[in-house]
Amino acid sequence: MNQPARVGILAGGGPLPAQVAEALRREGRDPFLVGFSGFADESRLAPYSHEMIRLAAAGAILRSLRRNGCSELVLIGPVRRPSWRALRPDAEGMRLLVRLGRALFAGDDGLLAAIIRILEEEGFRVRGAHEFLGTEANRAGPWGRVHPDRQAMDDMRQAVHALSVMGPLDIGQGCVVQNGLVLAVEALEGTDAMLLRCGDLRQEGAGGVLVKMPKTGQELRADMPTIGPVTVRRAAEAGLRGLAFPARLTLVVDPDHCIKEADRLGLFLYGLGPDSVFEKRM
Amino acid sequence: MNQPARVGILAGGGPLPAQVAEALRREGRDPFLVGFSGFADESRLAPYSHEMIRLAAAGAILRSLRRNGCSELVLIGPVRRPSWRALRPDAEGMRLLVRLGRALFAGDDGLLAAIIRILEEEGFRVRGAHEFLGTEANRAGPWGRVHPDRQAMDDMRQAVHALSVMGPLDIGQGCVVQNGLVLAVEALEGTDAMLLRCGDLRQEGAGGVLVKMPKTGQELRADMPTIGPVTVRRAAEAGLRGLAFPARLTLVVDPDHCIKEADRLGLFLYGLGPDSVFEKRM
Repeated sequence: MNQPARVGILAGGGPLPAQVAEALRREGRDPFLVGFSGFADESRLAPYSHEMIRLAAAGAILRSLRRNGCSELVLIGPVRRPSWRALRPDAEGMRLLVRLGRALFAGDDGLLAAIIRILEEEGFRVRGAHEFLGTEANRAGPWGRVHPDRQAMDDMRQAVHALSVMGPLDIGQGCVVQNGLVLAVEALEGTDAMLLRCGDLRQEGAGGVLVKMPKTGQELRADMPTIGPVTVRRAAEAGLRGLAFPARLTLVVDPDHCIKEADRLGLFLYGLGPDSVFEKRM
Repeated sequence: MNQPARVGILAGGGPLPAQVAEALRREGRDPFLVGFSGFADESRLAPYSHEMIRLAAAGAILRSLRRNGCSELVLIGPVRRPSWRALRPDAEGMRLLVRLGRALFAGDDGLLAAIIRILEEEGFRVRGAHEFLGTEANRAGPWGRVHPDRQAMDDMRQAVHALSVMGPLDIGQGCVVQNGLVLAVEALEGTDAMLLRCGDLRQEGAGGVLVKMPKTGQELRADMPTIGPVTVRRAAEAGLRGLAFPARLTLVVDPDHCIKEADRLGLFLYGLGPDSVFEKRM
C-alpha cells in the first residue's frame, strides 16, 4: 500500500488554511492543522483534525505534528512578527530561536527561509500551498468582464518593472501606479494599509493599478502573493481600476467571489502570464 | 559696472524661500519672490520684494519676473500637484501646459525637469537653492552629540543601497530601515506621512534609521532632499534613532535648530560624505 504522506498545515490567519485542508480532503487525504493561537481562526479549522498552539511553543508544535503522523508541511495564512515579550518560547522554541540566530533580524524572506530550513532539518518536507490549491491552472489575461485599456497596461508594465528592480531588496510585494506616477510602494505595512493611503494620493484622471508580485528569490513556500475579495474591495475604495498578479504564482482566495466583486465594482483582474509583460521582465 | 543678475525666487511652502532670499540679501543682492498662492506663506515673504500669484497663472508669473528684472530663477519650497479643476490656467499657462504635454503625466522628476527646460527656453537661467544656501559646506559625519552605533551604520548602509537601486525608478527619496528590516519606502505620500506610519511598524529592539537621498539623475534644481526640525521630531515620534542624508546634496532647514532638537530627543543626524557608505554606492 503506497499511501501519500499526511500533510500538516501550519495555519496563520484568513481562509486559506481551511481551503488547503479542503483541497487535500477532496483528494481523499486527511490533513492535520496546527492553528497558531491569536492568528488562526479556529472556527474555520473546526471541520478538520486540528490543534491550537502558541507560535513560540515550537516543542509542542513539533510533537503534535509527529504524534499526528505528518511528514509533509504547508505554511499558510498571515502571521505577524510577534514581540519578544509576547513570544514566551518553550524549551524547544528557545533552541530554535538560537538556531535561527541572525536570521531573526533579517527581512521577512531571510527569516522564513531559515524557518523552512530548520523544519527540513527536523525531517519534514515543506511544500507550497500553491501545489495543493492548483494555481498552475490560473488563467493569464483578464479574469472578469472588465479589461485593462492601454494606459492601464502601461501602468501595469511600470509597476512590474519597479517591483522587479526592487525584488532583490526584500522590501515588499505591492506597488500602485497611476498614469505613470508611482503612488505607493508596499513595505512592512502590507497591501491593505498601502491601498488605504492610495485613496488620499489619488491623482485626477483614470485610476491607478495595483500589481502584486513575488520578490526575486522569494521563498514561495512561505509567503506567496495573495489576493482575495477584500483586496478587490480595498482597491476599489482607493479609486484603482484594477489588479494584476502573476497568475501561477499568486494564491487567489475564492476566485469566483473575487471576479464577482471585480465585475460589480468595475475593476479588472489581470493574470500576468508567460505572454505578458511579466515574464519578459523577470 | 558688472552687477550680478537679479534672482527671482519661485516660492512654494515652508521657510526655505525666505532663507534663500535672506542668503541673497546677505551677499548684498536684492531678490524678488513670486509666492504661489495657497502654498507660499506670505508673512515669511513680507520682508522682501514679492508678489503672490496663482501657480497656473504662468503668463502673470513670467511678466512679473521680467518686469522686476529677474534673469536667474530658483524654485524652492513644496508645492502639491494641483488638480485640473483648481488649476484655471491663464492664456500663457494654457500654452505652457500644451508645451509640457506628456511630461504632465510623468513622475515628479519628469514634470519638474520639463518645467525647468521651458523656463530656460523662456530665457531664464535656473539655479539650485543649494548654490545660495551653501550646502557645499555641510559637514560629513555626525552633526550633534549622538553618534550612530554599528547597527545604525548597517541600517544606513542598507537604506542607502535600497534607495540607490530604486533611484532610477523615480519613486521617492526616503526609506526607513530597522535592524535589517525595511519598515517603509516613501513614494508620493512624502517623508512626513511615511514617518507617521513607521510608529506602528516599529519592531522591538533598537530603533530604525531614516535615510533621505536624491533619486538617480534627479533634477536637484527643483526637488532636493530637505530636512528640518519637523523631520527630526517626526522621526523621534516614530521611534527612530537617527537621520542620515548626503551632506552636500541636502537642504537643511535651520541646521542649528535641527541639531538642538536631535540632541534634546537623543537622535543622531549624520551627513553622508565622500568617505561614507554613500558615495561608494552611487
